[in-house]
Amino acid sequence: MVRRNEIREGEKAVAAPPPSDGGLVFIGMVHTPWTSRMMTPRQGRMDGPVCRIDIFDPWQEALSGIEAFERLEVLYWLHRSRRDLVLQSPASDGSVRGTFALRSPVRPNPIGTSIVTLVRRDNTSLFVRGLDCLDGTPLLDLKPDRALFTPIAPPQPGDFETE
Amino acid sequence: MVRRNEIREGEKAVAAPPPSDGGLVFIGMVHTPWTSRMMTPRQGRMDGPVCRIDIFDPWQEALSGIEAFERLEVLYWLHRSRRDLVLQSPASDGSVRGTFALRSPVRPNPIGTSIVTLVRRDNTSLFVRGLDCLDGTPLLDLKPDRALFTPIAPPQPGDFETE
Repeated sequence: MVRRNEIREGEKAVAAPPPSDGGLVFIGMVHTPWTSRMMTPRQGRMDGPVCRIDIFDPWQEALSGIEAFERLEVLYWLHRSRRDLVLQSPASDGSVRGTFALRSPVRPNPIGTSIVTLVRRDNTSLFVRGLDCLDGTPLLDLKPDRALFTPIAPPQPGDFETE
Repeated sequence: MVRRNEIREGEKAVAAPPPSDGGLVFIGMVHTPWTSRMMTPRQGRMDGPVCRIDIFDPWQEALSGIEAFERLEVLYWLHRSRRDLVLQSPASDGSVRGTFALRSPVRPNPIGTSIVTLVRRDNTSLFVRGLDCLDGTPLLDLKPDRALFTPIAPPQPGDFETE
């Protein structure tokens, strides 16, 4: 079952500090077929439904050149998730695991990350496969998949450091 | 050259909305050998130096079980980056590309993501390879690498949807 923000047997919540160390701007919105958390996939799949990502003003021009990348990394804000659990029981069976050993949406900073395939761009919208989030999820960032990207900026000394 | 927050030829800044749509809590700090942006690698490498990630109170218990994962996804806050560029010129040569077609630290929400290998855990510190950020970078999240993680929670209808 999806968590409706209850705390389950064995789970542990902490007194979380106020989330005021950094501020986010929502740069767009993700549209998916899933309007209920009871339907949303646990993980995206590359042969899953095509979803639409709309980019808000004034960020549209930042899409320039994105069509060159077959796969993108998408960061989004899991706006319905509680943020104060350090131990979670995903199977609701009393067994627990630390939040950082899970990809659960419940985390101190509920940022979801997915790798998606870019199907097409239509002006300020991108059509992609591979998402796993609720319809209406706020968008935080888009980047080329790290495996496809070579920095344009000249290398720096750290790029050659091994140990 | 590293950007010292100047705007280069051909680049475009926008009037960015205030970053008040969501709030972040810094859950730890990343320690690396790089104390200057002039030295920091453009991209991390799996044979790069071992770096230390310290987890702050009250989040340490969320590390429980993390040793089971050879690779982790790390999210961090690029606290020195400007956030208002939509077109950037990484080579400083007048040619530009959209921010979402780059993995530059300059972005509306300056969140860096890396895949690292976990060398060892020592209590509330993790030692990892593969980072590319400045010493003292605030930590936002740790998750198992998506390729190594199988959800524990039961699947939902969306997990089986293809199109």
